[in-house]
Amino acid sequence: MYVILVYDMEQKRIGKMLKLCRRYLNWIQNSVFEGEITEVQLKELLYEARRIMNEEEDSLILFKNRDQRWLEKEIVGQERSRIDDFL
Amino acid sequence: MYVILVYDMEQKRIGKMLKLCRRYLNWIQNSVFEGEITEVQLKELLYEARRIMNEEEDSLILFKNRDQRWLEKEIVGQERSRIDDFL
Repeated sequence: MYVILVYDMEQKRIGKMLKLCRRYLNWIQNSVFEGEITEVQLKELLYEARRIMNEEEDSLILFKNRDQRWLEKEIVGQERSRIDDFL
Repeated sequence: MYVILVYDMEQKRIGKMLKLCRRYLNWIQNSVFEGEITEVQLKELLYEARRIMNEEEDSLILFKNRDQRWLEKEIVGQERSRIDDFL
């Protein structure tokens, strides 16, 4: 399945979350990830994410789609995934 | 059409961008918006966004979909749109 994941978290927890999400998905903007993922991997990712998050303060939104072809992507300005290559 | 819009901008330009995006879409997280929008409205939005953005530094990603039903949304933690009601 194809997912888009966006989070909004307290600064001190961002590093761990970024590292976690990059293990499963492609980083395309500051706090935005996308990619193909299996149901099992997604469960793992969300389980780990909940351990990092403070659910009273942080927010994670996931858009799930069976197939990426239903979504067209348009980028204005910088494409952060290029930066990602150097990290 | 249904769109998800995410931006990553220099702090000093965020206020204007937020205001612009909220005129067209629903604010669901810090820098994430979604909603139904016509082709014409989207053109207007992107035209205005480009005037606010510094395309060398900022990033705006748009996911477009003919129909929202292809996307399933899951929220973990806080749903920012509730906060939005009080602003």
